[in-house]
Amino acid sequence: MTTIQQLGTPTALIDTQRMQRNIQRMQARMTALGMSFRPHVKTTKSLPVVQEQIAAGAQGITVSTLKEAEQFFEAGVTDILYAVGMVPSKLPQALGLRQRGCDLKIVTDNAAAAREICNFGSAHGEVFEVWIEIDTDGHRSGIKPEDDSLLEVARVLQDAGMQMGGVMTHAGSSYDCDNHAALLAISELERAGAVRAAQRLREADLPCPVVSIGSTPTALTAEHLEGVTEVRAGVYVFFDLVMHNVGVCTTDDIALSVLTTVIGHQTEKGWAIVDAGWMAMSRDRGTQKQKHDFGFGQVCTEDGKVLEGYTLSGANQEHGILSHAGEPDRSIVERFPIGTRLRILPNHACATGAQHPEYQAVLPDGNTETWPRFYGW
Amino acid sequence: MTTIQQLGTPTALIDTQRMQRNIQRMQARMTALGMSFRPHVKTTKSLPVVQEQIAAGAQGITVSTLKEAEQFFEAGVTDILYAVGMVPSKLPQALGLRQRGCDLKIVTDNAAAAREICNFGSAHGEVFEVWIEIDTDGHRSGIKPEDDSLLEVARVLQDAGMQMGGVMTHAGSSYDCDNHAALLAISELERAGAVRAAQRLREADLPCPVVSIGSTPTALTAEHLEGVTEVRAGVYVFFDLVMHNVGVCTTDDIALSVLTTVIGHQTEKGWAIVDAGWMAMSRDRGTQKQKHDFGFGQVCTEDGKVLEGYTLSGANQEHGILSHAGEPDRSIVERFPIGTRLRILPNHACATGAQHPEYQAVLPDGNTETWPRFYGW
Repeated sequence: MTTIQQLGTPTALIDTQRMQRNIQRMQARMTALGMSFRPHVKTTKSLPVVQEQIAAGAQGITVSTLKEAEQFFEAGVTDILYAVGMVPSKLPQALGLRQRGCDLKIVTDNAAAAREICNFGSAHGEVFEVWIEIDTDGHRSGIKPEDDSLLEVARVLQDAGMQMGGVMTHAGSSYDCDNHAALLAISELERAGAVRAAQRLREADLPCPVVSIGSTPTALTAEHLEGVTEVRAGVYVFFDLVMHNVGVCTTDDIALSVLTTVIGHQTEKGWAIVDAGWMAMSRDRGTQKQKHDFGFGQVCTEDGKVLEGYTLSGANQEHGILSHAGEPDRSIVERFPIGTRLRILPNHACATGAQHPEYQAVLPDGNTETWPRFYGW
Repeated sequence: MTTIQQLGTPTALIDTQRMQRNIQRMQARMTALGMSFRPHVKTTKSLPVVQEQIAAGAQGITVSTLKEAEQFFEAGVTDILYAVGMVPSKLPQALGLRQRGCDLKIVTDNAAAAREICNFGSAHGEVFEVWIEIDTDGHRSGIKPEDDSLLEVARVLQDAGMQMGGVMTHAGSSYDCDNHAALLAISELERAGAVRAAQRLREADLPCPVVSIGSTPTALTAEHLEGVTEVRAGVYVFFDLVMHNVGVCTTDDIALSVLTTVIGHQTEKGWAIVDAGWMAMSRDRGTQKQKHDFGFGQVCTEDGKVLEGYTLSGANQEHGILSHAGEPDRSIVERFPIGTRLRILPNHACATGAQHPEYQAVLPDGNTETWPRFYGW
């Protein structure tokens, strides 16, 4: 039995009670909206977390790499969407997964890649299930709902006998919102764009069983999801300071933090130096352009109470600079003596988690448990 | 035998010829200046790289975590400086290393931690070798050369019978320079500050055998290092775009890159989408405030030729957005068709390397070799 007080620093902590609350909140919402829910596991890459999401009602998972697909398939998850555009060089690995019984769905947004998928599938006697990526908000990949190439790509797949799984979109620009009205607007843009793409396919006698949308902000905002069949979201399981600024959680919902120790001070500057630098927090400065800039993270006590105004204002590889906004705190040495242990809430849970080989899950009884995570490709 | 063309993407590549040139350049400089050289291995955390640095003449290594000390000690390196301020909770691990024969030197910059080191050392019959950290440029940790606490800390250590190893400083603000005159000034500030601290200790009859300074920019700039005994530097072994902007390397010196594949386009925006997002590049935007902002990295051909004006202008977890500065490149699809393989030079080699479980070292004959790296604490 290990408690937080016995852990070395820096360490990534999961508050499992907050995590459970976040999982239940999202799943209850999806159930009420009549949606299948397919969590994006790139946030945690950790089996114990994903098992809780599935136990709560998730149907299948979303992955960002084929390594995630391999790892979760080996652990018994079979319904997997690889949500990054397929390229020829990755088809052999996708084929291998399907041949071993994984119900892997792949994604494309262009005719060139679609043709490669068809040629490779035909050559290997494999009917790939392919979803077409739709661009509903202009932030990254996908075909615009009204674009001619939507029907072209679908026909390439259909003519070669591939399985048309449906359409999927991700309104990543929802991360730029900071009020409910803006979130509602982007949620409707995401829903309507995906539904319109599906409608165009169906009107052209092309099958489109699945209409998949999602991001944490839109999933938690949409008032109805008419025409949609499933939702995907990832970071909601931990939340973070970016999501706090977007307006879909409070700091009390953030389930991931980094445990750290005070190792020094610069008294006249009001700095405490801690052993959580960017290697522990990540270089993510996602709150930099938001309404509240938290530097490299919000400082809390060891037991998780937010210390208002104290942030990691700077970070080197293994050094963090802790300071108070505004006037330097001249009593920084007395407030945070050498050896003081603190928790830091992260800007971006996906990026911070990725810096750690494992999480320490803090259980309701106060004991901690090691939850491994994996990385690489 | 594997060549670059056979590697999956994204993958971290080391151009071993460039790496060797970088190692030889630094070592030749150190030898000419009469300095011991103690490379900082936090950049690579990879044994084959460090073995090359030692073969070229390095004497001992610098580490940023005790895990690095453990790993390199197990691999046969005994002379190790742990260059992050010691705290009580880490003393048992430091003791364990010393008891197993590791010549581990630890660092402090305050009397509170010094007393804890002394109490712990005395209680366990261990004479720790302690170096005092000096703040020569105000960027982070350390005692100012003229500060009273310098002598206080030294006396605490001396009175308890610890071994006074010397003084060490790191002028990290040299990363903010962008011209030779500024680099010369900061180099002299670093040298003079460390030498002055040593002088004050010696004048007070306190021993100070080692005077250790260093950062890649100052190590490559200083015209003389009178009074200094050793130099530390890390990122020089790979260099990166931040160092290019500082002015101590060219893009042709950068030995680390990320191999990536084009997975899609947004034609009207002039974007190609690649499979190197921030998970492969890191979230480091170190060139953002420098004279040339390279976004998330400089785009090169698969064989390493710089494609002027093309950068990763955006990055999500597993998606990078490749675009040309200024007007959108309307022929982006023809220039970089689906499946095109490219290399991306990183802003910050330490941060980019940390995202990868291993490097693929490209040998002079064109074959590649897996060089593992480790992470975590």
